[in-house]
Amino acid sequence: MKTKRVAILGSTGSIGRQALEVIDSQPQWKVCALAAGNNWRLLAEQARRYAASHVAVASPAAAGPLAKAVGDGPAVHAGPDAMTELVRTCEADVVLSGVVGTAGLVPTLAAIDCGATVALANKETLVLGGSIVMPAARAAGVDVLPVDSEHSAIFQCLAAGRREEVRRVVITASGGALRDWDEARVREATVADALRHPTWSMGPKITIDSATLINKALEVVEARWLFDLGPDQIAVVGHGESIVHSYVEFRDGSVIAQMGRPDMTTPIAYALSYPHRAPRDVPPLDLPACGPLTFWELTDRFDRAVALGFEALRRGPAAAAALNAANEAAVRAFLDGQIPFGEIVPLVETVVNLAASPTEVTLEALLGADAIARRQVEERISAGAKPRLAGQ
Amino acid sequence: MKTKRVAILGSTGSIGRQALEVIDSQPQWKVCALAAGNNWRLLAEQARRYAASHVAVASPAAAGPLAKAVGDGPAVHAGPDAMTELVRTCEADVVLSGVVGTAGLVPTLAAIDCGATVALANKETLVLGGSIVMPAARAAGVDVLPVDSEHSAIFQCLAAGRREEVRRVVITASGGALRDWDEARVREATVADALRHPTWSMGPKITIDSATLINKALEVVEARWLFDLGPDQIAVVGHGESIVHSYVEFRDGSVIAQMGRPDMTTPIAYALSYPHRAPRDVPPLDLPACGPLTFWELTDRFDRAVALGFEALRRGPAAAAALNAANEAAVRAFLDGQIPFGEIVPLVETVVNLAASPTEVTLEALLGADAIARRQVEERISAGAKPRLAGQ
Repeated sequence: MKTKRVAILGSTGSIGRQALEVIDSQPQWKVCALAAGNNWRLLAEQARRYAASHVAVASPAAAGPLAKAVGDGPAVHAGPDAMTELVRTCEADVVLSGVVGTAGLVPTLAAIDCGATVALANKETLVLGGSIVMPAARAAGVDVLPVDSEHSAIFQCLAAGRREEVRRVVITASGGALRDWDEARVREATVADALRHPTWSMGPKITIDSATLINKALEVVEARWLFDLGPDQIAVVGHGESIVHSYVEFRDGSVIAQMGRPDMTTPIAYALSYPHRAPRDVPPLDLPACGPLTFWELTDRFDRAVALGFEALRRGPAAAAALNAANEAAVRAFLDGQIPFGEIVPLVETVVNLAASPTEVTLEALLGADAIARRQVEERISAGAKPRLAGQ
Repeated sequence: MKTKRVAILGSTGSIGRQALEVIDSQPQWKVCALAAGNNWRLLAEQARRYAASHVAVASPAAAGPLAKAVGDGPAVHAGPDAMTELVRTCEADVVLSGVVGTAGLVPTLAAIDCGATVALANKETLVLGGSIVMPAARAAGVDVLPVDSEHSAIFQCLAAGRREEVRRVVITASGGALRDWDEARVREATVADALRHPTWSMGPKITIDSATLINKALEVVEARWLFDLGPDQIAVVGHGESIVHSYVEFRDGSVIAQMGRPDMTTPIAYALSYPHRAPRDVPPLDLPACGPLTFWELTDRFDRAVALGFEALRRGPAAAAALNAANEAAVRAFLDGQIPFGEIVPLVETVVNLAASPTEVTLEALLGADAIARRQVEERISAGAKPRLAGQ
């Protein structure tokens, strides 16, 4: 395999650190650039270790300490456009985006513009901007490779047939930390409760999204864009053990599934080595040791959260932008103790249902819809008004 | 999809009848030839219905009635070489072999010689003759496509990576009709008991092979030849629900599995439509309705039977020929009431362990090894001697 120059956006986060761990075992991959939000200490340490030639930090306050810590070696970018600058100058073959939230969109567009392969762990980029990112990637002849375990699974399974032979893709859902809790208890779940994911170790935002199941709503929209599917070709099924990461039903009745231990290093390694599979020193999946694999239809609160993804697809890109932004704002408010867990989904639902369709889908229009949705969440929270519940 | 001319060997058997059912729904596939053992009445009916231009019957006694029944339409071939004659003259694009046992080998070699794609449900052909069939197919540039559900699964999963990226293939085993029986009871199982397969509806020979687990020993050898694997790249795992038909472990830790309801029409349709997937009006696999999927390591009598496949690979083609032939003879003796169920595996084990390695692998040498093994089984049965049990 030939040398690949890899840029990692969000290198100090959960995905970024696991990506570096994967790269440790693959001498043919070279880290050329690292970007983070504000953790300049860890970023500087990573830059030294991997001899990165570019580093970026979003927080302007971190610029000075970072520059001092990395010395004369790498070019230092700082401020709100730092990540995009870094992407435009680092000459990466692959840009892996492990950024959380809307912040990942513009750097991803820059990577496409530069002709770099995009390895996308940042699902919000496609939920917010799929309608512009995917056409841009197609026009540039650039691959957008999923690093989500579910979408990596679907992508791998799709190799077993042609696109027009796909009947449906089925995304599996573990049910998150509060899977077996009753409705009343869920409403009052604490941050610690919601962060206790049964099978996956991930960052806080995505772990809360797992607990609300809004993660699956986002993944429905992401699947629509990654694989160019209609809403009726996407389904979500519960699967508590997180061994079957997702599957594809073909029109001849055959189903292809991707399986593995719940470990993000597998989809990361796959995206970095695509179209090959790099040899990795990981133990094989021991299916007999996994115990029974169970699957169930989503019901009640699970179904309500996932329905937001289908509703966003029905209503169009502004609603998808609203879904993503309202959810980011609501999760932030929950983590900050401003709203109970049980208000996240109703709040997001209210804002998605308010979304207007922009007549033209542009980056500006989508960022506008994003900003409006955030404001709507904040207004509702600061007014102390309970969000309207369905059926009231 | 363009028109395909299909010849079906063993058209009156379980696979043959299901293949015709599949073809009923695909107007682009045309049945050009049909061959059977001795059921001339059903064969004639099929020939009329599908307007086959060639029919063949192995039983010389059936030749007259068949010729009379089909009238002036198709060419009639009869006798021991009839199937091979039919293959050589019918100009098929695909020859589907649903023949049971050794009888399938020579017609398959003829199909390869004529440049027809081979769709192989007759696993004995590869167990006996893999060492000559696969090199012949490669030399002729002919695809040999598996119609076994397990090997069709593996074949489909292999599309998700390159051959050198495969760590192992794992064949699943339902455990057959006597899965949960204790050792003492298994020894005395009746024909009716052993034919009561929990998940698959198949012909009698293969259903008995499922109950003994020798089916999996044969499949290990078949996988070695179909996919050019070493013995350490093949494993067998128990899976009672027969939903995961088999899976492939890649070197990056990712596992790709093929799933579906236990229904032979899916692998038949896949082999006939390959490299495409024909649209079929079959209900999707409803995983939540399947109940938990369980997997287990093979133990005791299961392991002993499957080990015969690995032993045959270790000892070489003559031992594989002996495995296949001794098993055919032993199953026949069981079905005829000559030996108890519990003697099938020990008898086959004894004969496999007697097999010499031919210095040269030729069709004649393999058929010689086949004949010797059958005689050894018959001698042991008619001597009334109990086969030597392991450890005695």
